Amino acid sequence: MTQLLRVQNFTVSTDGVAAGEDQTLERPFGGHVDPGRLFSWAGATASWPNRTDPGGSRGLDDYMTRDFAHNIGAEIMGRNKFGPQRGPWEDHEWQGWWGDEPPFHTPVFVLTHHERPSITLSDTTFHFVAGDPAAVLGQAREAARGKDVRLGGGATTIKEFLDADLVDTLHVAVAPVELGTGIRLWDSPDDLRDRFHLDVVPSPSGVTHHLFWRK
Amino acid sequence: MTQLLRVQNFTVSTDGVAAGEDQTLERPFGGHVDPGRLFSWAGATASWPNRTDPGGSRGLDDYMTRDFAHNIGAEIMGRNKFGPQRGPWEDHEWQGWWGDEPPFHTPVFVLTHHERPSITLSDTTFHFVAGDPAAVLGQAREAARGKDVRLGGGATTIKEFLDADLVDTLHVAVAPVELGTGIRLWDSPDDLRDRFHLDVVPSPSGVTHHLFWRK
Repeated sequence: MTQLLRVQNFTVSTDGVAAGEDQTLERPFGGHVDPGRLFSWAGATASWPNRTDPGGSRGLDDYMTRDFAHNIGAEIMGRNKFGPQRGPWEDHEWQGWWGDEPPFHTPVFVLTHHERPSITLSDTTFHFVAGDPAAVLGQAREAARGKDVRLGGGATTIKEFLDADLVDTLHVAVAPVELGTGIRLWDSPDDLRDRFHLDVVPSPSGVTHHLFWRK
Repeated sequence: MTQLLRVQNFTVSTDGVAAGEDQTLERPFGGHVDPGRLFSWAGATASWPNRTDPGGSRGLDDYMTRDFAHNIGAEIMGRNKFGPQRGPWEDHEWQGWWGDEPPFHTPVFVLTHHERPSITLSDTTFHFVAGDPAAVLGQAREAARGKDVRLGGGATTIKEFLDADLVDTLHVAVAPVELGTGIRLWDSPDDLRDRFHLDVVPSPSGVTHHLFWRK
């Protein structure tokens, strides 16, 4: 069984922006980016991990959110997805944005050149690793015990793994929001067509799902 | 956690026909219905259970086929999905269409008024049960141990459970084939709009996925 490297539920604006450059503790997606607007499609679904009531839609968008953890055994994320700090860790108090019950439920490999001991919160363990994309993917595959590995973002991390030709499938939701400036995943989804098949699937919710798989 | 009753990957023609009336051992879908044409969308995907090579698409249609077993703990099927026999079982040699490794991997409840002992083939056990839809669903829910129950078809069985208002979600793929006569699931998908939300999602493969969930 192949172990895939999969991007899932990654959301960008119509102009390809995933987040602002000016991340802070208060504005994890940067000053001009409202994650509520980008991710409203996902928050409306029955399978959204943060849902606290029993409602939610069970149409197309829910196929996307309920596939998030399906056959996933580990995640790789960039340091800026884990937190707003830069440079050496000043202390180890910061344990990510997600509180005591992170929504990953697997080992998570956080890319950083600055050493730090692993943290376990409920059934998620964060490991802090340096190394090139291929080496980190090797560690994550071993930890995933035969299951697939999710590439969690942000955009810079996804581009690094795309540049190294390590990504097998990408699901990118393009939200009906224009952001103008920020960290861009792409100029256009067509940038990836040379290496990937692409299904473009408009959802009744207003987002357009882009489903890529390696040629 | 709610245990849903889910129809998945059920495929009909543009005129709502799922199978012919004249099922035989040689033509399980009836004389004028070629299942290869109806199901080619599913057979082309990476997650199709009968796939023997490592290829296949990983776009929209693959979300549908890979969700087939996700969180499913039991299936309910009509007798005609299990085999072409009618009336009392003449012998117990027939064990379904699927050989030694049926693609269900859970308990399966086959609706029949004619008694027969259960059969276990690999990790699938077929139970032969009489009773109204609500009673059979109760048995299947108990066997599913907290997971959802799949309603496997055929069209007559799905209509019985719809009439009893027991179905929570339906995924029906409408294939670009016109059949004219046969066993019909509906005159139009709009027939269900009074009780269900509906996302209509055309796939690049030519089928149109209809995703219903209860209002």
